[in-house]
Order: sequence, then structure tokens, then C-alpha cells
Amino acid sequence: MTTPSPLPSSGRSAGLTPGSADAQGASAAAVTTARLDNGMDVVVIADYRAPVVTHMVWYRNGSADDPLGKSGIAHFLEHLMFKGTVKNPAGKFSELVSDLGGQENAFTSNDFTAYFQRIGRDHLGVCMAYEADRMKNLVLSDEVVAPERNVVLEERRMRTDADPGEILDEAMGAAVYTSHPYGKPVIGWEHEIETLDRTDAFNYYERFYTPENAILIVAGDVEPDAVIAMAREVYGSVEPFGTAPQRRRPLEPRPTTQRMLRLADEKVEQPRLQRMHLVPSYRTAKPGEAEALEVLAHLLGGGQTSLLFRRLVVAERLAVSAGAHYIGTSLDDTRFGLYAVPAPGVSLDRLEAAVEAVVAGVAATGFDKADLARAKTRLIAEAIYARDSQMLLANWYGASLATGMALEDIAAWPDRIEAVTAADVVQALGYLDARRGVTGFLLSAEPVAA
Amino acid sequence: MTTPSPLPSSGRSAGLTPGSADAQGASAAAVTTARLDNGMDVVVIADYRAPVVTHMVWYRNGSADDPLGKSGIAHFLEHLMFKGTVKNPAGKFSELVSDLGGQENAFTSNDFTAYFQRIGRDHLGVCMAYEADRMKNLVLSDEVVAPERNVVLEERRMRTDADPGEILDEAMGAAVYTSHPYGKPVIGWEHEIETLDRTDAFNYYERFYTPENAILIVAGDVEPDAVIAMAREVYGSVEPFGTAPQRRRPLEPRPTTQRMLRLADEKVEQPRLQRMHLVPSYRTAKPGEAEALEVLAHLLGGGQTSLLFRRLVVAERLAVSAGAHYIGTSLDDTRFGLYAVPAPGVSLDRLEAAVEAVVAGVAATGFDKADLARAKTRLIAEAIYARDSQMLLANWYGASLATGMALEDIAAWPDRIEAVTAADVVQALGYLDARRGVTGFLLSAEPVAA
Repeated sequence: MTTPSPLPSSGRSAGLTPGSADAQGASAAAVTTARLDNGMDVVVIADYRAPVVTHMVWYRNGSADDPLGKSGIAHFLEHLMFKGTVKNPAGKFSELVSDLGGQENAFTSNDFTAYFQRIGRDHLGVCMAYEADRMKNLVLSDEVVAPERNVVLEERRMRTDADPGEILDEAMGAAVYTSHPYGKPVIGWEHEIETLDRTDAFNYYERFYTPENAILIVAGDVEPDAVIAMAREVYGSVEPFGTAPQRRRPLEPRPTTQRMLRLADEKVEQPRLQRMHLVPSYRTAKPGEAEALEVLAHLLGGGQTSLLFRRLVVAERLAVSAGAHYIGTSLDDTRFGLYAVPAPGVSLDRLEAAVEAVVAGVAATGFDKADLARAKTRLIAEAIYARDSQMLLANWYGASLATGMALEDIAAWPDRIEAVTAADVVQALGYLDARRGVTGFLLSAEPVAA
Repeated sequence: MTTPSPLPSSGRSAGLTPGSADAQGASAAAVTTARLDNGMDVVVIADYRAPVVTHMVWYRNGSADDPLGKSGIAHFLEHLMFKGTVKNPAGKFSELVSDLGGQENAFTSNDFTAYFQRIGRDHLGVCMAYEADRMKNLVLSDEVVAPERNVVLEERRMRTDADPGEILDEAMGAAVYTSHPYGKPVIGWEHEIETLDRTDAFNYYERFYTPENAILIVAGDVEPDAVIAMAREVYGSVEPFGTAPQRRRPLEPRPTTQRMLRLADEKVEQPRLQRMHLVPSYRTAKPGEAEALEVLAHLLGGGQTSLLFRRLVVAERLAVSAGAHYIGTSLDDTRFGLYAVPAPGVSLDRLEAAVEAVVAGVAATGFDKADLARAKTRLIAEAIYARDSQMLLANWYGASLATGMALEDIAAWPDRIEAVTAADVVQALGYLDARRGVTGFLLSAEPVAA
């Protein structure tokens, strides 16, 4: 029941070369897919190293699909999904999973909501039966909804309102997105969470929780055909709507101005500089553009060999850390972020000028060829290493498919990264124009009465 | 077919002491009201100085009621309302009004859309018949809708996109409102205007154009009872929905950060500093608070005796003009603005510090009693002088009633302004905390690469 940001590229993984079942039989990441008659997608990722299975149901709806004035409902419903059905009263399944030595949880993001269990392979059927049951039979009573709303409000108070860094992040999101709902926090605005009731939750559940909107991901030590047969039997019996739910989202207009946010709070122990830019996602980009942004993020700020780190932390000693990230798995236009944490005594103004100088420098002189080659190799290697984690692998498939990508896109990803040229990266750098970006200063003391 | 901002307080007028028909018979601004059986409100303002009448129909829907992803539809429909009915084909009525020496036009704002004619008093019936006809019988064909959309797009290009000051204003609005639709431009975002079609326009028309949603304002040399009888006959025959349309708008969360916008463009001939704060409107304020904000705007920036003008323009010669404004007639939380135009050679940073110093100064020392008394007297006097303009008077009633105020509120306004104390104004100053505000820099040249 966490509310993560969409998976950052450096944290996620892909690298299934080639990844589709057609192209590849029993590789370490062989993938088999099916679509049930009721519209539910099934993806089975074979992984035979341990007698364990990861079972996930992804719904193609997230906080950006919250109805107007009802921010937080996707996440609130995720909480309520643990409140039980007639067949599985609250707590019964969780207890069983725990008794069997498994884990379960769920998370809500901008574009999707997912529920998962990690458990011994013999118990896959129990998990399927449970998820199929709560896809349609959730019991929502006022007695359950009202207290859980307080749980969510408390979650918001602890995680967001008590943390100036989170408050600034929320404001940065709202500044990047003036019209598109990515500007709203996943957990919701407090004054809107307070109004969420049983009817809101039920209407939302009735709108999105249906097989046509769901993707089943099973990764682990399983026989793909047997899993698909089981899914057909268990999930196949869930009544569909007849048509898949639609997402309706306004698009973000082109950014026109430079925006600068400043938050000073005595609770801040470590000041921070952030920069955000609106950029295309894998789904909205022109061919090759998202891949170039991915490589750019790695070149500028992926680890200790990146330009920002080498220049700001190592060479100039202005920062204690610095980096960049690109959130490519996103249904609509997404964010490219830069950040730096100042060394003691360094002002954020000075740090910002140094970050700008790094960006201006590569815009003028281009990227070093060896740096570019290394960045691509590392990006692809990270993806291959990530195969080691069954959960990361399952997450990458789920997030990609839930944000409009196809299996072929995932399979072709290493080749597409390999194809990125220095010119592509310099072109992508155009999105980082300070005159169209959002800068955030998190400050550790009250500024002089301005 | 203009798209004005809501009437700024210094431009509008009220001052009907007392203004209701009950309290006052045949005063210069005697008001008579009625509600028709179909739910339409009627307000008649007697004004006998010239044989002229102002006839307005106000609808309680504006750009903030545009459906998600359909920004600009309120304004677009306002255009389309001139495209004719079977009884009144396009142009026929306009020609008649012109032949009779009258004028007609319309405007769309955040909270309302209004249509009006100024014409000789004998022609009131013709105007009523026309407005009643197009309230229900508008003919919308693709042949009419598509070209008019191009007209609106061209209007946007000329007024907004070609003017960096307008672009910055749009971005300021979007920064002040992260969630509430006041952050969207009245004319709409270009990429959304482009998608508006006949179905959108028709659905919008069918949702809002109904007697229950309309206010008729007639000001002029008329006999109130006769006007109401005529309205009953003409407008009373328009079929109602049965229930008034609802406005559904998310509320704006409390501002948490300081935001700064910067737009540099070679087309800018005169740099400008702006500051905007989210503040309560007359409808959302606690008792007395909106009146205090109104007085504060006048004290800080209402004309050449205001603090900002005296200090920045006269004493320090840092600015060539400076002022403040408060948009109180607003259904939801509204904006308090400060601005200053720098004298040659003065940077906006320096000007901003000077504006802050003025605000900090009065926050520390309070307001001069004589200044406060003069501000209140002038505000009330302006309202009384505004009685001279039949159109302003009608506008003030329409805007007030369409944003949730009652006739009694309008009548009591001078007394409520009179009751504002120095402590109230200092309290209102709390809203102008720079740490929660939006600052805009409009610059005449590209800034040095930041």
C-alpha cells in the first residue's frame, strides 16, 4: 500500500533480447502471453532459479485518472481493496500469505495500480482466486471507508506534510503540469481526500476494476501453458464490461516560461537544488527521442562517472551529490529531472549556475564519444543485471505494458539504446532549456523576510 | 465577443445605499427583482436620465466550468451564439440593432458569460425576443462551427501568442491555480481549442443554456413592473430543465511555496514586475475579509496617492507606474495582484526588493489613519460615481449575482467597506507573504544564460 513515483529508469530493468515468446523458447527471461476471452491480458515470465512465483495484477488506471476534485481516489481504493469480500473477509488472505511464508502488497502510481504477492510456486492458484474475487466482489461499507480515509490522511500528513522536501516535490509537479493531472499528487490533495466517501470509491471501482483493464503478470518457476490455463479458468470467469474503460486526460500545453520555486523550512537539514523539464515519454516521443533522453540522463547524472557528479562533486567540490533522471514509462509527456545537493557553505544560486554551466558546456561541445559508449553499455548492462530480480523484471513488464508499450518495444529496447547517436543526445538536450524549466530550491532556514 | 478578466474592483461600481427595491422606491438606482416560474432571475435597475436601455442576459457558467480537456468551450459557444436560429438567421438581429442605432456584444469570463444590447428604450421587446429565442433554438452546423473555431484560434494567436505579456499572464494564472480551473485561460489552450467541435458546443449549450441558469438585467429608462411583465411573457415561455445546472470545480489547495516566473522576449518593449497571491473572494471570505482586501488594494496600489505609487514612482523613482488590484467578484478563491513598471535602468530584482520593502514596512508599522480613511472614502465615492454609467451599473449587478452574491450584499457594500479597520487591513496583508506568492518578470531581452 505504498505510493511510489513511477519507476525511475535507473531503477527499473528490461533487456530481454529478444523477449517475446515467439522469438525465444526457454531463455532466462522467456515471455509467454495470452489474452483471455474477457479481455484480460496475461504475461508469463519464466524464471527457474528458485521455487518462487511473483503474481501481480496491474490495472490501467492511476492517480492521473482520478475524477476532477477527487484526487487520491485511485490510491484510496488501493487501500480499500484490502477490506475484504464475502468469500475473503478482511485479513483472511493476508494471514494465509503470511502463514505460507509469502509477502503481499500494492502500489499506486500516476498511470497504474498494481497488487502483488511473492510466494512459493505451489500457491499461485490461491493468489489468482483471491485477486479474481476482489476484482468484482469487494465489500465497501461506510464502517470500513471512513476509518481508512483517516489512515490515508495520516499517511499524507506523515509522508508529505511533515516533510518540506515532499511539499516542494508536490509543488514542482504542479508547476511542471499546469493542465495535465500528473500535476496532482498520487496520494491526493488533503482537502480532496477528506471528501472521498463510499460512493466515490464504489463508482471508481465499478469504472476501472474489470478484466479488460487488467494485466496479469506471473514471473517465476512456472510452466507458462499451465499458468495460462489456470488464468483462463480462474480469471476467465470474471464478468467483463464489454468495453474497456477509457482514460480521459487533458494534454499539457507547451511550456512557455521559466519557473522557480523556493521553499524554506526549519525542518530542512540538507538544502537541495532540483530542476524539472517536461519531455516526451516512450509512448509520446518521436522515434529514438525517448531513448536519447534515457542516455542523456545517464550521461548527465547516472552515478559517479556522470558529468554532473564528476564536475560538481569531484572537480569543483560544490556538491556532495548530483544526478539526473528520466521517467520514460509514462502514458503522457513526462519529466526529466536534475538535482544537486550543495557542499557546506555553497549557495543554491551558485550551484544552479554550476549545473547550468555543465549543461551549456555539453550543448556547446557535444559529448565525449567514450562517455557516450560507456553510458549505453552501462544502461543495457543494468537492464540485464536486473533479470536477477524477479520482482524488478515483473515490474518492468507491468509498468511498460500499463503505459502503452508493447512486448516488442521491451524486447527491442537494448537495440534502440545502442542506436542512440551523439547528435540524438545533443538534440534531446534542447528540452533542458532553462527558459522552459522548473527549478526548485529547498532551503534549510527561513529566508530574510523577502 | 470579448474575453475580459473579471471586472477589477477599481473598474466596477456598486454603492447602492440601500439598493433593494424594498428599501428604496424611485432612487437613481432603485432595483426591482423577480424570479420567473421557469427559474430565470430578473433584475431591473431604473435609470431615467436618457431614453436608453441596457439589456443583458448573464449565464452562470464561465471558462472555469469548461469540461476537462475542453478549455475554451464557454468562450467558443459565446461566439457561436451569434450564428443564428431558424427565426433569426445569423446577422439579422445584429443588422436590426445597428439600424436602430444600438450596440450589441457579449463577453466570457471565469465565472459567467453575458450577452447584451444598448438600445433605445422602445426596442427592449425586440432584444428580449431575440435572447429568449437563442437560449434554446440555436442552430449549430459543422459549416458554422469549423470556420468559427479558426476565428477563435486566430483571436488567440493575435491576443495571446503574439504578446509575451499575455503569455506570462497565462503562466501566472496557471502557477497561482495548480488545481482549480481558474488556472486555465478563458480563451482556452490552443491544442484544446483545436479539438472543439459541434458536439462539444452542442453538449455545452444543452447543459448550461436554460432559464434556471440565467439572470436578466435591464437597466435604463423603463418602468420596472412593465419590464417584469414583459420578461414573464417573453422569457417565461422558455422551457426550463427542471433543475439548475451544477458547477463542479475542484478547490485550490493552500499555497505552499514561493514561485517565480520569468519570460524574456525580444518583442517586450517595457519590462514589468508582477506578483499574484491566492486570496478569498467576496463569496469565499470570512466576514469582512474581502472588504479588507479591497481596501488594502486601494491603499497599496489604487492610483497616484497609493503607497506603491508614492514610494516607487514619486519618492524613489524606481518605477514609472505601480499598482495593486483585487478581483473580489469571483465564485471561488481569487487573486490579489501587485505590479510595477521599472524606470529606465532599474532591474526587476531591485524593483521587487523595493515592492517588498513597501509591503514589509506597512506590515511592521501599520497604515496611516488618514490614508485608510481616504482609501475608504474614495472606494465608496468611485462606486457612487459609477452610477453615472448605466453599463457599469448593470455589469456590477450581473457579475455580483453570477458569482454568488445577493442583492443585499451589493446594497450593504458601502457600509461594509466603511467598517474595515486598520487591524483588518494589516491582517489581510498576511495573504501577501512572498513565501506563498507567484512573482512574474517580463523582460525585454534574453537573459544571460542563467
